[in-house]
Amino acid sequence: MDNFTFHNPVRLIFGQGQIAQLSKEIPTGARVLFAFGGGSIKTNGVYDQVVAALQGAGLHWAEFAGIEPNPRYETLMQAVELARREKLDFILAVGGGSVADGCKFIAAAIPFVGDPWDILAKRARITQAVPMGIVLTLPATGSEMNCFAVVSRDETHEKLSFGHPAVWPKFSVLDPHSTYSLPPRQLGNGIVDAYVHVLEQYLTFPAAAPLTDRLAEAVLSTLVEIAPRAMANPPDYQARANLMWCAAMALNGLVGSGVPQDWATHYIGHELTALSGIDHARTLAAIWPGVMALKFEAKKAKLAQYAERVWNIRDGSEDERALAAIAKTRAFFESVGVPTGLSSYDLPADIAAQIAGRLAARHQAPLGEHGDIDSAMVKRIVEAA
Amino acid sequence: MDNFTFHNPVRLIFGQGQIAQLSKEIPTGARVLFAFGGGSIKTNGVYDQVVAALQGAGLHWAEFAGIEPNPRYETLMQAVELARREKLDFILAVGGGSVADGCKFIAAAIPFVGDPWDILAKRARITQAVPMGIVLTLPATGSEMNCFAVVSRDETHEKLSFGHPAVWPKFSVLDPHSTYSLPPRQLGNGIVDAYVHVLEQYLTFPAAAPLTDRLAEAVLSTLVEIAPRAMANPPDYQARANLMWCAAMALNGLVGSGVPQDWATHYIGHELTALSGIDHARTLAAIWPGVMALKFEAKKAKLAQYAERVWNIRDGSEDERALAAIAKTRAFFESVGVPTGLSSYDLPADIAAQIAGRLAARHQAPLGEHGDIDSAMVKRIVEAA
Repeated sequence: MDNFTFHNPVRLIFGQGQIAQLSKEIPTGARVLFAFGGGSIKTNGVYDQVVAALQGAGLHWAEFAGIEPNPRYETLMQAVELARREKLDFILAVGGGSVADGCKFIAAAIPFVGDPWDILAKRARITQAVPMGIVLTLPATGSEMNCFAVVSRDETHEKLSFGHPAVWPKFSVLDPHSTYSLPPRQLGNGIVDAYVHVLEQYLTFPAAAPLTDRLAEAVLSTLVEIAPRAMANPPDYQARANLMWCAAMALNGLVGSGVPQDWATHYIGHELTALSGIDHARTLAAIWPGVMALKFEAKKAKLAQYAERVWNIRDGSEDERALAAIAKTRAFFESVGVPTGLSSYDLPADIAAQIAGRLAARHQAPLGEHGDIDSAMVKRIVEAA
Repeated sequence: MDNFTFHNPVRLIFGQGQIAQLSKEIPTGARVLFAFGGGSIKTNGVYDQVVAALQGAGLHWAEFAGIEPNPRYETLMQAVELARREKLDFILAVGGGSVADGCKFIAAAIPFVGDPWDILAKRARITQAVPMGIVLTLPATGSEMNCFAVVSRDETHEKLSFGHPAVWPKFSVLDPHSTYSLPPRQLGNGIVDAYVHVLEQYLTFPAAAPLTDRLAEAVLSTLVEIAPRAMANPPDYQARANLMWCAAMALNGLVGSGVPQDWATHYIGHELTALSGIDHARTLAAIWPGVMALKFEAKKAKLAQYAERVWNIRDGSEDERALAAIAKTRAFFESVGVPTGLSSYDLPADIAAQIAGRLAARHQAPLGEHGDIDSAMVKRIVEAA
């Protein structure tokens, strides 16, 4: 086990009817920026529940609609201007991971002195942020229980991340009912996103951390168990509830405690989304098999453990079990409607070279838990997809 | 899954050499109450590391030694007087769960207006507490990662608990090396204590919470796996590290998220310790089989799941698998040196009636996840032990 610090101060408020708790969780007298996405919350009842809670607490609020998937810097800066102009001092993000991530950036940008783009592009030092809370409607990114965010910028085709303790959500409300209206594509993406978050922290090499391993396997096994029910129509409360709980646990720091981590799939996937607009989870499902193929020797001990513990594969050599687990994982992603390659997308011929070049230029490669996935390997991984 | 709120703001600083982090974690200029137990930290190097960190940060501190197992109200009030007299404004607890629990009480009692015993006896309202941090030397109670404490009072033979967000530790430092000098009895007790903490939250009835179930099974399976190595001499860093991580995870709120909980074994065990002085973990190991026997029908579905997932028992009827799991659990406790009955202790003949009467008088019975373990059943459970 490696040394680690685990710290996660988010108050997770979970279950049916919990949106009403907002009236107690938002500070009395706060002036709230109520930010959301494309407006689905107006048809599924979430908007009305939030408004009722804000009104019940006698809070002033201003609405900001239109935070898009892969939240755009240009859009978020409009919210920053609104908040500065109206002296809003609490941010309520209502939506999925994109709204949550976008609001973390807004929270940090409002009091930032200088060009807020530097927070992402130059990792400029943040000293404070406006406090924020989340009402989650799409289980996927885990943003509801971490202090990280990913933001995109149109003009430069960049997708960049930042993280800071100042943007820990004070609370996140997770009501499984608020996921009922999700289209299957978003639900399948969410399942894959949460699953790959765990794989990035788990599929490396044995590190004498059996508890952390089992916590990761707990999330993976549960996602495999509940995915068919979570995808089914009509929605199943218990399946959606466990999916929400899994997605939060997948990226709140616990399953990465004391172990090496990979994240190559994510770095490559972010570039692919930035260049092509492909959904985040779809880039992960497409890129992941190539990372496994290229790093098979380094990862096969852990892959064989994963095969046994999550997929109940006990027969065959270590290589055979490891390969079978990769095949099972691809089949699982496909079962929730997410392709595990890029052949169905219209991409430029030099996409692999572009991605490799961009990662190298930003000094983000070499990647992986051994720091040995260089630009040439990145290119091969994307070509394999 | 039941509705729940999960919130745990403790900063867990884990690994070798981490005691030095104290110099960064304790606020600059703090006046520290450095509290510890019987002095074992002076022989195992922990005291010296703490002093070096305090000196390095230029902090003022006063020492308070002698917090005993099952920390006594009478002792703790001496520390309260010291802290009030010397205007100490940060508490550093260095030791096991008893020191941690005792310091939570000290933290709440220092600013308390009125008789601090009311915090325990009358659940008097706490509005504030002196901030505290922990350096853990004995993995067992989970106090390092929760806001609960248990305190005993000699004159009334009472052992009472309280919990409040004001006594969350700001941080807990867990260096596995600091457990190396533990005698086998304390180590075995610690393993049983952590294990029973999970059982109390897990062995109830199925509640459609497969992720929380698997998190619990992760802790149990890991304790079973590492216990022999953790008990072995010389100590094994990885086994001790995983034991510390398991004990923290066993009672930090996660494995109880969204599920019913029992705690009958603990309520009965606390009375037994208060009346007889038997080690806390030993009362748990002695009482638990009786609770399982009496509530077998209500618990057997979950016991059978436990049999399969933790003990790999897959043959036989549900009843047979459930019974086999109980037997395996008893054998596990015995394997770390903890008896699973009371026959080796010298106890008054009416101990069962005394315990049942005390729980009833304090309105703590009926107990259990169904609230149906009444005084007569408590008596039978203790008699069975």
